[in-house]
Amino acid sequence: MKDFISKIISGEKKYISRAISIVENGTEERDSLLEELYKHTGKAYRIGITGPPGAGKSTLTNCLVKRLQSKGYKIGVIAVDPTSPFTGGALLGDRIRMSEVSLLEGVFIRSMATRGSLGGLSKNVVEACDILDASGKDFIIIETVGVGQSELDIAEMADTTIVVLVPESGDSVQQLKAGLMEIADIFVLNKSDRLGADGIAASLKNIIHLKPPSEDKWEINVLKTIADKGEGVEEVIKEMTRHKYHLEKTGYFDKKRKEHIKKKIVELVNGKLQIHFWSEEKKQILESHIDKIYGKTENPYSFSKQIIGT
Amino acid sequence: MKDFISKIISGEKKYISRAISIVENGTEERDSLLEELYKHTGKAYRIGITGPPGAGKSTLTNCLVKRLQSKGYKIGVIAVDPTSPFTGGALLGDRIRMSEVSLLEGVFIRSMATRGSLGGLSKNVVEACDILDASGKDFIIIETVGVGQSELDIAEMADTTIVVLVPESGDSVQQLKAGLMEIADIFVLNKSDRLGADGIAASLKNIIHLKPPSEDKWEINVLKTIADKGEGVEEVIKEMTRHKYHLEKTGYFDKKRKEHIKKKIVELVNGKLQIHFWSEEKKQILESHIDKIYGKTENPYSFSKQIIGT
Repeated sequence: MKDFISKIISGEKKYISRAISIVENGTEERDSLLEELYKHTGKAYRIGITGPPGAGKSTLTNCLVKRLQSKGYKIGVIAVDPTSPFTGGALLGDRIRMSEVSLLEGVFIRSMATRGSLGGLSKNVVEACDILDASGKDFIIIETVGVGQSELDIAEMADTTIVVLVPESGDSVQQLKAGLMEIADIFVLNKSDRLGADGIAASLKNIIHLKPPSEDKWEINVLKTIADKGEGVEEVIKEMTRHKYHLEKTGYFDKKRKEHIKKKIVELVNGKLQIHFWSEEKKQILESHIDKIYGKTENPYSFSKQIIGT
Repeated sequence: MKDFISKIISGEKKYISRAISIVENGTEERDSLLEELYKHTGKAYRIGITGPPGAGKSTLTNCLVKRLQSKGYKIGVIAVDPTSPFTGGALLGDRIRMSEVSLLEGVFIRSMATRGSLGGLSKNVVEACDILDASGKDFIIIETVGVGQSELDIAEMADTTIVVLVPESGDSVQQLKAGLMEIADIFVLNKSDRLGADGIAASLKNIIHLKPPSEDKWEINVLKTIADKGEGVEEVIKEMTRHKYHLEKTGYFDKKRKEHIKKKIVELVNGKLQIHFWSEEKKQILESHIDKIYGKTENPYSFSKQIIGT
C-alpha cells in the first residue's frame, strides 16, 4: 500500500488510473486508500466546465489543457459522461481528441459516468479529484454536460465554474430557466464567430447586471472564444487566474473549501448511518409490511417511526 | 383536524390549498395531516409531463385538463417551476392560461418550486400529490421542465410519463444525451406542423426500436400534436389509457407503486436517522474539527467513523 501511495503521489499515470478504478469499483481498499491520500490533497485548483450539449466544452477543455501544459503545469481532467444505455455516453470524436492530449507529459484524463444519466455527479468524481490532487496536479478540470443536478454539484466542488454557451443557445429566458446563470463564475461564449453572438453576449451581460451582487463581490465577465481555432483561450486562463486571486484575497477560497469538507463529512456520516441501520433484518421487516401499507391498513408515517423505535 | 380532513376529502379547493401550504411550510401539523390522509390515497392516476423548455408542456397540460374535465373527471395539476432568483419561475403567459382552467369545476392547479433550481423534485411534490389523491381526483398531472434530476423523480412517481418534444428539439443524438429517452412511456411531438417534424418523429421511432424492450414489454409510441389548436390531444388521452390498462394487466401498476412506497419509507427513515444523529452537540463537534481537517492534521474518513463512535 505504501509503495502504491508513493507511486500515485509521484504522478505515475498507471497508478493514478488504478486508484480511480479502486474508487469506482468500491473495493475494500477504497477507504484506506482515500484516507492515506487525503493529507496529500489541497494543492490543486479545481475548475468546473459545464454548459448545454454541443457548446464545445470538450474542445475548450482540450485547448485549456494544451495551453496550461505548455506553461509547465500538470493537469488532470475528469470528463463526466451522462452515459445512456442508448448512446453509450459521449460522442466518439470528442474522446479521440481528448486521448491525443492525454499523451502529453503531466496530463491525466479520465472519463467517468454520472450516477444515473441525469442524476448528478457521483461521489466518485469528488474522490477521483482528490486522487488527482494528491498526484501533484496543479489544475483539475471537471467537465460535464449541463443537464441538471450535475451542474450544482460541479459548482459546489469547483473553485471556479465556467459556463460555456453558444449563439445557438438561443432565447436567453429559456437559458435562465435552465438555471445555468446561478453557478457561473465565468461565462464563455464559444463559436462566437457565428450569427447572433453579439446579441447573446449583450443579453448575458444585461442579465448579469440584474443579478444581485454575490456575497464575495465577484463580477462575472462574458468572454468570447472560438475554441476550434484556439481563439480567446488565453483570455479564459487569465480570467480564471483573476478569479483565483479574488477568492484567495477575499478569504472565500478557504471558506468554500471548508464548507465542502463539512458537506463531505455529513455525507460520509449519513451514508454510514444508513448502512448501519438497514440490516438484513430491518430490510425484511420493511418488505413484510409493504403489502399492508399498500393496502392502507398501515401507513408509511407511523411505520417509519415504529421501525426506528421511537 | 377531523373537520379539516373531511373538507379535503370532499374536494374543497380552499382546504386542499391550505393542506398543500402546510406541507410546504413544514409546520407541526404536517406529519399528522399526511398520516390521516394516507388511507384516502391510491385512487388517482398519476401522469408526469416533462420535456425541454419551450416544448409546450403547459399548453398540452391545459388541453388535457379541459378534455378530461369535460368527460366528467376530476383533475389535479402540480406545475413544478424551477424557480430562479433571476426569473422568478415560469413564464407569466403559461400561468395565466393555467389560472383560467383552474376555475373549472373539479380542477385544482398549484405551482410548486423545485428544491433548488435544478435540484430535482422536492419531497413536497409527492406529498402534494397525495393530498390531491385524497381529495378525490381521478387524474393528477405533474408538469415539470426537463432539466435533470426532476425528470427521474417524475418518472418514478408517475404511473405514465409523457415526454414532450418539438421539431426544434433538434439533433436527436443530443437529446439522447440529455437522457429523456429513458423515462418516456409516451412521446408527444408537439408543434408538429413545423418544419422538421416528420424527420424528428422518424428518428425518435428509430431510436425507440434500438432500445432493448422494457421489462413490462410496453411499446412506446410517438404521437403528434398541435396543442395550440387542440389537435392530437384526444389521441394522447387514448394512449395514456392504453398504457394504464397495460400496467394493470401486467401487474406492473401494483409493482411500481409498491416500489415507490418502499422508497418513500426508506427516505422517511433515513431523514429521521439524520435528524436524530445531528444534534446541536454533534454539529459543534463537527464544526470544531473543520480547521484541523482542512489543515490535514485530521482526515474526514477517520473523523466520520469517530463521530459515529464505531
